[in-house]
Amino acid sequence: MEWHNITDPASPELDRLAEQYHLHPLHIEDCRHRNQSAKIEEGEAYLFAVLKVMRLMDDGSLHAADLDVFFGQNFVITVEEETCPEIKSIIQQARQTPSAPQRSDQLFYRIMDHVVDSYLPILDHFDDLIDALEDEALENPTPDTLSRIFQNKRALAILRRVLVNTRDVTGHLQRAESPYIARDMWPFLRDVYDHVARNLDLVEMMRDLLSGALDVYLSSVANRTNQVMKVLTVLSTIALPALVVSGFYGMNVKGLPAADSTYGVVLVILLMVGCTVLLLYLLKRFRWL
Amino acid sequence: MEWHNITDPASPELDRLAEQYHLHPLHIEDCRHRNQSAKIEEGEAYLFAVLKVMRLMDDGSLHAADLDVFFGQNFVITVEEETCPEIKSIIQQARQTPSAPQRSDQLFYRIMDHVVDSYLPILDHFDDLIDALEDEALENPTPDTLSRIFQNKRALAILRRVLVNTRDVTGHLQRAESPYIARDMWPFLRDVYDHVARNLDLVEMMRDLLSGALDVYLSSVANRTNQVMKVLTVLSTIALPALVVSGFYGMNVKGLPAADSTYGVVLVILLMVGCTVLLLYLLKRFRWL
Amino acid sequence: MEWHNITDPASPELDRLAEQYHLHPLHIEDCRHRNQSAKIEEGEAYLFAVLKVMRLMDDGSLHAADLDVFFGQNFVITVEEETCPEIKSIIQQARQTPSAPQRSDQLFYRIMDHVVDSYLPILDHFDDLIDALEDEALENPTPDTLSRIFQNKRALAILRRVLVNTRDVTGHLQRAESPYIARDMWPFLRDVYDHVARNLDLVEMMRDLLSGALDVYLSSVANRTNQVMKVLTVLSTIALPALVVSGFYGMNVKGLPAADSTYGVVLVILLMVGCTVLLLYLLKRFRWL
Amino acid sequence: MEWHNITDPASPELDRLAEQYHLHPLHIEDCRHRNQSAKIEEGEAYLFAVLKVMRLMDDGSLHAADLDVFFGQNFVITVEEETCPEIKSIIQQARQTPSAPQRSDQLFYRIMDHVVDSYLPILDHFDDLIDALEDEALENPTPDTLSRIFQNKRALAILRRVLVNTRDVTGHLQRAESPYIARDMWPFLRDVYDHVARNLDLVEMMRDLLSGALDVYLSSVANRTNQVMKVLTVLSTIALPALVVSGFYGMNVKGLPAADSTYGVVLVILLMVGCTVLLLYLLKRFRWL
Amino acid sequence: MEWHNITDPASPELDRLAEQYHLHPLHIEDCRHRNQSAKIEEGEAYLFAVLKVMRLMDDGSLHAADLDVFFGQNFVITVEEETCPEIKSIIQQARQTPSAPQRSDQLFYRIMDHVVDSYLPILDHFDDLIDALEDEALENPTPDTLSRIFQNKRALAILRRVLVNTRDVTGHLQRAESPYIARDMWPFLRDVYDHVARNLDLVEMMRDLLSGALDVYLSSVANRTNQVMKVLTVLSTIALPALVVSGFYGMNVKGLPAADSTYGVVLVILLMVGCTVLLLYLLKRFRWL
Repeated sequence: MEWHNITDPASPELDRLAEQYHLHPLHIEDCRHRNQSAKIEEGEAYLFAVLKVMRLMDDGSLHAADLDVFFGQNFVITVEEETCPEIKSIIQQARQTPSAPQRSDQLFYRIMDHVVDSYLPILDHFDDLIDALEDEALENPTPDTLSRIFQNKRALAILRRVLVNTRDVTGHLQRAESPYIARDMWPFLRDVYDHVARNLDLVEMMRDLLSGALDVYLSSVANRTNQVMKVLTVLSTIALPALVVSGFYGMNVKGLPAADSTYGVVLVILLMVGCTVLLLYLLKRFRWL
Repeated sequence: MEWHNITDPASPELDRLAEQYHLHPLHIEDCRHRNQSAKIEEGEAYLFAVLKVMRLMDDGSLHAADLDVFFGQNFVITVEEETCPEIKSIIQQARQTPSAPQRSDQLFYRIMDHVVDSYLPILDHFDDLIDALEDEALENPTPDTLSRIFQNKRALAILRRVLVNTRDVTGHLQRAESPYIARDMWPFLRDVYDHVARNLDLVEMMRDLLSGALDVYLSSVANRTNQVMKVLTVLSTIALPALVVSGFYGMNVKGLPAADSTYGVVLVILLMVGCTVLLLYLLKRFRWL
Repeated sequence: MEWHNITDPASPELDRLAEQYHLHPLHIEDCRHRNQSAKIEEGEAYLFAVLKVMRLMDDGSLHAADLDVFFGQNFVITVEEETCPEIKSIIQQARQTPSAPQRSDQLFYRIMDHVVDSYLPILDHFDDLIDALEDEALENPTPDTLSRIFQNKRALAILRRVLVNTRDVTGHLQRAESPYIARDMWPFLRDVYDHVARNLDLVEMMRDLLSGALDVYLSSVANRTNQVMKVLTVLSTIALPALVVSGFYGMNVKGLPAADSTYGVVLVILLMVGCTVLLLYLLKRFRWL
Repeated sequence: MEWHNITDPASPELDRLAEQYHLHPLHIEDCRHRNQSAKIEEGEAYLFAVLKVMRLMDDGSLHAADLDVFFGQNFVITVEEETCPEIKSIIQQARQTPSAPQRSDQLFYRIMDHVVDSYLPILDHFDDLIDALEDEALENPTPDTLSRIFQNKRALAILRRVLVNTRDVTGHLQRAESPYIARDMWPFLRDVYDHVARNLDLVEMMRDLLSGALDVYLSSVANRTNQVMKVLTVLSTIALPALVVSGFYGMNVKGLPAADSTYGVVLVILLMVGCTVLLLYLLKRFRWL
Repeated sequence: MEWHNITDPASPELDRLAEQYHLHPLHIEDCRHRNQSAKIEEGEAYLFAVLKVMRLMDDGSLHAADLDVFFGQNFVITVEEETCPEIKSIIQQARQTPSAPQRSDQLFYRIMDHVVDSYLPILDHFDDLIDALEDEALENPTPDTLSRIFQNKRALAILRRVLVNTRDVTGHLQRAESPYIARDMWPFLRDVYDHVARNLDLVEMMRDLLSGALDVYLSSVANRTNQVMKVLTVLSTIALPALVVSGFYGMNVKGLPAADSTYGVVLVILLMVGCTVLLLYLLKRFRWL
């Protein structure tokens, strides 16, 4: 079995291989125009797969690079997206495995398995992030929380799309009785399928939790506003009787009751405190607060 | 019929059995790497099932442990997840039944039946919890309520996933005309399927109610804020006329009307009370409050 | 045709019939353990149906009782849930029909038809209730409204589950070419199917409207809070200028303008009213309120 | 071809026709008990269709009347719902067409086509209404807006149900290779199907927009409350410094600074204005408002 | 191969061609009555496709114009919607391609490919717009934001409908083994299908994000209201003690403590500041704010 690894899709090497193995022009175009969806297509004498390798960027967004694989009876051609270190590492892992695969379908399975394994740290990253966002939405909701919920929603939408397409690829590989995949590979392909399906379940669950985090944010803010309102109302309840009473005794009007008595001040203070206590009692009693 | 129960998946005993019964390496790997989904797979001369036994942790979260079962013509191999007492108790129940099952499919059904029965107390637990959360969201919504709604949402998402996969396993067992399952077991498998499907219906209903509890929380908080606002507005309505009137008569300005008359104070008090009553009447009349 | 009606599922009479007609032990168990889903199952020489009869409890919740029917070539066995008057009345209706059915499938259809008819008053009840809840949410939203919306949501979820299962039963009866159902019964079964499907449509619509009622509740409360806020702001707008002006003239400071003039009070009052009118005009003009 | 049009389903004329053409008793019952869903059923020697004609009531609600059609080899029987002018007008349109249809399937197509055309003005009505409701929710949200959003939701739910069932009828007509529909009618039936499907798409879109209008309502109200709160806070910010300062100088305490100086009033006014300006600057600076 | 391009569907030229190629009257009607959905239909000796060309109007709304294509063994007829410059440019592009297509299916593919390519700038436009709306909803939510979210929702609903129908057309072209499409065109048609499906995924994602933007708007406004409330409460907390104390000392009552002492003013100021600091400390300490 021959394995050709193309690190630059623009190189004429790819054209040469296309001619040698009768690769379809549309597939070559797919290798050169990036941002394909994960897919599997049948060519004249080979299968053509586009796999997606995901990469977490520094700003928290997600970039999905393409790894194209042609494989037929006795050959495998892999075409890397040049700028992606994750793809390079996957190719290297496939190469370094102690027992080198003898058949092209075995090599393809190995590459696919590494690609699917590479999703795990990314899923873990988002799982942790969502946990943190939930706590933040509950305990300290700021506009920044909102902005990050949104950003992750977008990243999960991309993640989900990649996983759905990858699942369809592995599903297709099981159903399509291709001559290029021996029967003894089926349990292994099914294993990959199960992995992807499980990951997809996780992503759906995370999307659900993220939507919930937005609701929690809103509820949490509403609750805080309610809290602040209560504080303001209690403050007003305490101050208003004092203000009304002192306003009353501040009037330049004759005959204010008890104003000239010796215990005037004491009586006035008792009046103020009494009103406030009564008000607070009433609010409590009728559960108005 | 021979029944081998492995309590430690790492033991070489499992390797010996794998050799004896030609178990597929991927299935042995599944026994040793935990956190599989519930599934059923066909091996060379046996069926391999991963069942999930759920366990409610002290912090209210849900842990799903694996119970792996291989069964063929004359043998059953069960592989326990070592740390889970629930699995041990299920294995013991299957063993203690008075009439020992004679056939491997009967034993498998018995184990599966016990696994599915073990979900019931967990469902009841969540049903009670959601009832309590609803009441709390209505009557006393606190951030803690919110946090627990969220935690249960997560637990129900796990529960749902286990039940969906378990249902698919039982569904597959009915359809797949496996040589290892005699026809007289079909009504029993269908019975298990119905149980799981009914449980799944319940979980979907609980998820729905939990989402509703979040909406109730928000509505309930909004209602309380509205209540507090009304209290504040009524307080202001009562105090403001008094303050305006007393402020007016507190001015160091000549010629305040009735300030020097004998009944000045009485007139002023009547003015204050009158304004307040008028205001409250207007608010009521035009339904502004 | 013989019709055996068992009013107490625990009675040995049921065991006797089970032996006579070779009823499956799981089906007898279903008769004795209640809370089954509506379903249809094929036995050795009969069909076994679980029908659900719904009953509106005094507290507004919904109870679904089981009515089990076995029917074969020349016999029908009905097993009542003992405590349910609705089931008794359905059995009686099926008996009193002038032209007694000659065949077991006709009798089964008649019972099923009565069961499905018994859902109608319950649907009407919920339709009225939801109408009332909508109005309440719009015009007078209280925590009690919220609590009742939630309670009805739960009841509708149960109702929906019963209807979905009953529809599946009737759908299965049409497809399954059972020897116990003559071809001339098909249009009648289809008619029952259409009834149930139409009821299910109604329930889905009601669920949708109930979810909407929750949104209306929240919007309605938000609107009222907005209203209350406006009232408070207008009150403040009216009072604040007066308070500021009277505070100003209340100061023990020399040289307050116009304080000693004869028309001082008039000027001050004009100042107060002028500021308030100006403020209200500005709020109106720039649509701040 | 004979066309019998029955304007009163209770008339014995219908019984006579039922006997002549062997119409199934359930179908006759459907003609007499109204409020059927749109459906198509096969009889012994004919097809039986229930079509729904919609009518916009004065209060904005939607009434769906039944138009029943039997058609076989050489006859068509139409049964009107007596009180519906829309049905009368459709029957008349079918009659007045210049080239009278020669075959029963042609006549049925013509009637069905007119029924489907009659949905268009109703769809347009709701489209306009939703446009208006959106604008209202944005610019002037009142409880009445909420109430009308809800009413239209209910009407659209009915509309959708009629369209779904009508689409199923036309879909069934295409698939079922009935002897009563000639092959050359197929493109015409497909055309009707496309019309209904397009209308259904529109209704789904309108339902979506209506749900959105509810969200807009809530957001719009929240925004207005925010606006009112800002106004109140700015008012307080302007008034409070003045009140505090004037309160301070209103005290009957010795040694108030600058109280007796000639420029006391000017200083005090400068103090009041200074505090207010500083406060407003701070609120602006730190974006607290 | 002959290519007839009709720029005015009302022209008699179309009638002439209809007669020559036996075009179905319903298809001619579709050409003349615009606002069809994208679809593909089989005629007697040709395929008839309606393609939708989208155009972004100046007011931000979306207009979808029709481009009708008939193609058979040796002919292609294209019917433009007269007022749409986008359609003219697509027809021109198809014409100018250096290597003129020799077969009618090749020409059809070329036109379809250009139509699908023309969707890309529109998708990009909406992607940018939604990004901007998200930021606006987070940072500066105004009623105008709300209105534009809504307008884009409507446009995306139209876009989605066009894409769904176009995907179905391309899907149908692959499945239907039409004599007018040679086998070597299949990979190309599949390529178009993949493009449309990918675009549809993007639109679904954008719809999801737009719904999220509405939630963000509401949460963002709620957060701002909370912020404003806090400011108001802090202002009140600062002012109220000063007002209560100064009110107290403003009373015309005998025996106010320390009122006549030399350091009265200092003591009073200390009292005011002390109360305020204590209040702010308490609010902070118990996290009431």
